[in-house]
Amino acid sequence: MSLRSEFPVFERVSYLNAGSVGPAPRSAADAAIAEVRGQVDGGLVGVAQFERQLELAARLRERAAALLGADPGEVALTGATTDGVNAVIGGLELGPGDEVLTSDEEHPGLLAPLAAARERRGVSVRVVPFDEVAGAAGPATRLIACSHVSWHTGRVADTAGLAAAGPRVLLDGAQGLGAIAFDVRSLRCDFYAASGQKWLCGPIGSGYLYVGSDRIDELSPIAPGYGSLADPLKALELDLRAGAARFDAGFPPSHQAAWALASMDVLAAAGMDDVLRRGPALAARLAGDLAARGHTVAPRGDSTLVSWEAADPEAESKRLYGEGFVVRHLPGTPYVRASVGAWSSEEELERLVATSAS
Amino acid sequence: MSLRSEFPVFERVSYLNAGSVGPAPRSAADAAIAEVRGQVDGGLVGVAQFERQLELAARLRERAAALLGADPGEVALTGATTDGVNAVIGGLELGPGDEVLTSDEEHPGLLAPLAAARERRGVSVRVVPFDEVAGAAGPATRLIACSHVSWHTGRVADTAGLAAAGPRVLLDGAQGLGAIAFDVRSLRCDFYAASGQKWLCGPIGSGYLYVGSDRIDELSPIAPGYGSLADPLKALELDLRAGAARFDAGFPPSHQAAWALASMDVLAAAGMDDVLRRGPALAARLAGDLAARGHTVAPRGDSTLVSWEAADPEAESKRLYGEGFVVRHLPGTPYVRASVGAWSSEEELERLVATSAS
Repeated sequence: MSLRSEFPVFERVSYLNAGSVGPAPRSAADAAIAEVRGQVDGGLVGVAQFERQLELAARLRERAAALLGADPGEVALTGATTDGVNAVIGGLELGPGDEVLTSDEEHPGLLAPLAAARERRGVSVRVVPFDEVAGAAGPATRLIACSHVSWHTGRVADTAGLAAAGPRVLLDGAQGLGAIAFDVRSLRCDFYAASGQKWLCGPIGSGYLYVGSDRIDELSPIAPGYGSLADPLKALELDLRAGAARFDAGFPPSHQAAWALASMDVLAAAGMDDVLRRGPALAARLAGDLAARGHTVAPRGDSTLVSWEAADPEAESKRLYGEGFVVRHLPGTPYVRASVGAWSSEEELERLVATSAS
Repeated sequence: MSLRSEFPVFERVSYLNAGSVGPAPRSAADAAIAEVRGQVDGGLVGVAQFERQLELAARLRERAAALLGADPGEVALTGATTDGVNAVIGGLELGPGDEVLTSDEEHPGLLAPLAAARERRGVSVRVVPFDEVAGAAGPATRLIACSHVSWHTGRVADTAGLAAAGPRVLLDGAQGLGAIAFDVRSLRCDFYAASGQKWLCGPIGSGYLYVGSDRIDELSPIAPGYGSLADPLKALELDLRAGAARFDAGFPPSHQAAWALASMDVLAAAGMDDVLRRGPALAARLAGDLAARGHTVAPRGDSTLVSWEAADPEAESKRLYGEGFVVRHLPGTPYVRASVGAWSSEEELERLVATSAS
């Protein structure tokens, strides 16, 4: 079975919006539904159901760690990329005199936590152009927080430059994990906040945060709970459990974890290396074809996002929807954006080029 | 159809553990499954699916507000009681010299956030016996944070005394909302953190936080994101959206919201007033019958929890599981606890009494 045929959505439309929410495979629905039924029918009750939930969470942490190139003890299960960003920005000891450096192509899910750190803790926030971040760190810069892949343009951060800059580095990997090939050791970042529901085709409400083993004790959990503790009977002593699991956003419901795992299985069956090669390759081809047709394509990198200018991006994305394509406009920019995955077909991309107003 | 017959779990076991995770009605599974299928099949895609998600979230906020006796603008959609507790304790401006008063019967989900406030912000935490909290506030007490209903014993807080004490009051309502009759106006609390998956029979990963309209601006969001903002295009200005929705824990997935709503529908169809009357009445009868049989029942209030002493509570709860009853032991206490809902049957409670070791 081809990768594409695993996803029911492609029987209806040319879905090119994984950068918002990924398509989900049929088997993920089946897995989630089985877990919903299991919980409601009471086949497992009480302790047994809780153990099932913990078992799926442990498997998910291992799988996410493998995808990141990290150890399971370095991965927290979150509900969204934004959760991971907040865990890092809110969890670091930052205050007046400390600066966080960021770029001008960031998502509100990274900017809002930075604004909160400024308003509440007196942290300085400095914004520079996306491709100047690595060189812009100064003596007060304690943290660089920026996208691995820009959600506006698909440009890829100069991660080697960021790693060499000196301050701690938090990458917003919403458009990175599951989209492009990397591992966190090679990136040499300290923190990597990723999404589960985009390129990994998991459910809304899933995400992963990498915290390097040397960095775990630099973060205080911003929302500790039962699951953060080594011994819940001594909660007031705040003896935190080992590893990044202390930063988990609660315990993922078993239907959420099962969905995420089933989607990872589908990608793994297609060959994760192939998935991570084919998506960016198809995106590069789409970008070239749009440019050849006279479109102004945003400067981009080796990623799965292709943004191009339109006179009225919102109207153009609506028009394309009417033609059977799900793309999106990016408010505040001149762009319409297509998210191209390994599941995309050459034929649909050719049709998109042919259909796009020039 | 009787309320009890809506819940498949009762066809298998005598489930008496809603204080951990509530039973869920068949219709909730159906509703959640329909939303999972809808997302994966792509019947709604892109903007349409996001609008569906927002619509269900708005309905859920309205329903939760009605149950709390609050305005929808005073309710945040969280993932757990602990989320709400963290939003309040982490969100208030508290520091050295400020004291939080709590009780000796609190859940780790309240104690861990208090411990974090002490370790990170220098807040003092003072613990007093559960029934002495209202009278124990001192001049440094800025916040009283304690259970509405004790998860250990089922005792009910002296909410009139708490309201008269002076400091801000946060109630941990994990064993309150959906279990006993109240409204937040009568309680005169400032903050009420509740669970969705216990007495309201919603999914794991659901919860509600009441923040009185006069208190919303006293809290800074601890994990702001896209949904916290009035205008995501001006994220760095941190212009927060109106109402308690700024404290939402992300956007609830549509299958989670649909499950929660369907469960509320089942309770509403049985008559919420009747539900809130019958559960505590059955629990009181169980407590009386256990005491009459010679058990030492923990001092309790007009609630749905019944705890009684056992020589080895863990072994006793396992033994009862073997007899077809799902109850739980409470680590660190001498108690086995039964959670009695409006869905419980008199017959099963009589059997529980007959089966319990004395």
